[in-house]
Amino acid sequence: MTLDIINAVAEKTPSKIVLLVADGLGGLPHPSTGETELEVADTPNLDSLAAKSALGLTIPVQPGITPGSGPGHLGLFGYDPEVYLIKRGIMEALGIGLSIGPGQIATRGNFCTIDEGGNITDRRAGRISTELTAPLIEKLNSIKVDGCSVTVYPVKDHRFVAVFEGDGLGEDIAESDPQKLGVPPLTLAALSPSSTKMAEAAQQFVAQAESLLSGRDIANMVLLRGFSGFPKVPSMRDLFKLDPVAIASYPMYRGLAQIVGMEVASTGNTFGDELETLESLWGQHDYFFVHYKPTDAAGEDGDFESKVASIEELDSYIPRFLEMGPDVLMIGGDHSTPSVMAAHSWHPVPFLLHSSYSGMERTEGFSEKACARGLLGRFPAKEALPLALANAQKLAKFGA
Amino acid sequence: MTLDIINAVAEKTPSKIVLLVADGLGGLPHPSTGETELEVADTPNLDSLAAKSALGLTIPVQPGITPGSGPGHLGLFGYDPEVYLIKRGIMEALGIGLSIGPGQIATRGNFCTIDEGGNITDRRAGRISTELTAPLIEKLNSIKVDGCSVTVYPVKDHRFVAVFEGDGLGEDIAESDPQKLGVPPLTLAALSPSSTKMAEAAQQFVAQAESLLSGRDIANMVLLRGFSGFPKVPSMRDLFKLDPVAIASYPMYRGLAQIVGMEVASTGNTFGDELETLESLWGQHDYFFVHYKPTDAAGEDGDFESKVASIEELDSYIPRFLEMGPDVLMIGGDHSTPSVMAAHSWHPVPFLLHSSYSGMERTEGFSEKACARGLLGRFPAKEALPLALANAQKLAKFGA
Repeated sequence: MTLDIINAVAEKTPSKIVLLVADGLGGLPHPSTGETELEVADTPNLDSLAAKSALGLTIPVQPGITPGSGPGHLGLFGYDPEVYLIKRGIMEALGIGLSIGPGQIATRGNFCTIDEGGNITDRRAGRISTELTAPLIEKLNSIKVDGCSVTVYPVKDHRFVAVFEGDGLGEDIAESDPQKLGVPPLTLAALSPSSTKMAEAAQQFVAQAESLLSGRDIANMVLLRGFSGFPKVPSMRDLFKLDPVAIASYPMYRGLAQIVGMEVASTGNTFGDELETLESLWGQHDYFFVHYKPTDAAGEDGDFESKVASIEELDSYIPRFLEMGPDVLMIGGDHSTPSVMAAHSWHPVPFLLHSSYSGMERTEGFSEKACARGLLGRFPAKEALPLALANAQKLAKFGA
Repeated sequence: MTLDIINAVAEKTPSKIVLLVADGLGGLPHPSTGETELEVADTPNLDSLAAKSALGLTIPVQPGITPGSGPGHLGLFGYDPEVYLIKRGIMEALGIGLSIGPGQIATRGNFCTIDEGGNITDRRAGRISTELTAPLIEKLNSIKVDGCSVTVYPVKDHRFVAVFEGDGLGEDIAESDPQKLGVPPLTLAALSPSSTKMAEAAQQFVAQAESLLSGRDIANMVLLRGFSGFPKVPSMRDLFKLDPVAIASYPMYRGLAQIVGMEVASTGNTFGDELETLESLWGQHDYFFVHYKPTDAAGEDGDFESKVASIEELDSYIPRFLEMGPDVLMIGGDHSTPSVMAAHSWHPVPFLLHSSYSGMERTEGFSEKACARGLLGRFPAKEALPLALANAQKLAKFGA
């Protein structure tokens, strides 16, 4: 699939597309019943919608590849997640609600512990608590480096984000975490000439950090990795002629939406708040990304029953989506998070597309199996958006 | 699918993967019953395993393409069979148990018949028998050419393999078989400068062969084609971080496994021998390729009942595979060999993947139809290995 063709035939129309991402939607059978979370959940609304929709399974990146949230969402937004890579520094920054703009480079940091010889004895400093790192973060914020400014933000436990800001900073920096113990941190070397200035600033930062933290038993050094500037991603507005808005309460998903040029709506902390925001913005946009987190959270916790409950809760909101009368409603996930794995997984993700022209399954409910046998088959997640544009009649005919 | 990503996230772990290749597994309905070999066969073990596994259909190369054994297996080993081409000379050499190493070029040869004018009257010399060619092969082995040695090995009937060995030999040689009658053999021309020396040696070989065979009514000339050195294929060890072993009694499959860097186990002539070898090597590897030939042999013979029996025999061995407790068990085929066609075919091949995280079909048995409706859908055979690596939890997350 090439975006060139989509871009060439995309047209601006008033029709409205909703993408409801149930994070980590896909699951696996519970060993004792052989039924997945979606199969166990009582979902009258999703089931009756599925009968009037087309179902399929999305492959987030490649068969067998377990995606992080970045590639998982980029695919659903219509982008090839193997082409548009979102690096760790920017994801970590987005996760705590920072906006990274031009001239800024974000990097993920870890407090670590080194011995007298400078060799790493603990890459995570005993996962030192957020409270204990607060004063250390304050110390790091006193660091001055040549040619740019640097600001350090706490994330959680031993993790922080450092944002460098100035002219001429590049992101091609080798990471300092050697990923093993008994050796010193690696040099933050420039991997291309455009990143020389950044490398020098980063090395100064680390040297001063070591001196500021010296004398401590643990958390007496820092490791930096995933240096990243704002990703160069063409906007959904330009590529797809859409006027998109993101409605998500978690910072990371708001940040991901920003990367592809979505407007990001102010909203509250609950999914109910998100739905109210959607309803209030209904007249103002033609593409709405709505994010539902509890499915992933329950899956990550390995809590089968709680994931079932989160699916049932989502189901209860479906009528409100339909009442707004979207021309296209997509319900899918950025990846699977089976409770039995308590982690993201590679499994293709259930996907539903409802429009006047989607066709309809007529039978079965909404589940991994029904989707595996669905009208849409299995397809790369990046094809979902072109499919939605087509169903919303936003794509002109290709060729005479 | 790019192997770069798989390679980047692949990790060495102790989990074990078994690939059981039932050669030519897929079939077609018998015209009088409408049921395929797999549907007719009584396979209680495969059926109950299928209910606890994920099913699909593998496309060996491309829709409509009937693969030989080379591309059929390379796909299942995780390689794109359109990128990694195994040429005829090397396949023929592997088929008779030769190992082709660096500095060697193997080529397929035919005895043929030419008339007094030097024009070909029979490209296969009446399919002259292996016994009758034995003394001719002996004559060919007396040939000396400049700058390298050449050894000729009988294959079957009119076919032989010639192996040239020396420095600076290339494989880019035009074949001498014009594929039609009434014209002389073509010149074995070098297609690139690196193959000039090889072309000269081959031309000397053919000229001397003509002189040695002159005066005979049939089989008085040779045709050469498919010049090939040892294929440059990255090893499974490097690509996938596996420690793979092949358990196959037939030389060709042992040779194919060698090409992708598998260790090749000593084993006996029966599938029972292969299983004993598997059991004895269980602790020593993390990937096991086990080859079952009778399904293909029966299909090639056009013997529907015999193919049914070969599937039932395979079924009886399944419990022994499960008793070893593989983390991932794949059962598939390198291609289909429907008895009603008595030949390899292009039909997608039934595929089963069983692991703790495979999901489960719960219904139906193991057949072409069940696989067509399965959780894995239809997919290129080259995606089977990444899927197995994922199920064996040997792939780290992609992206943050």
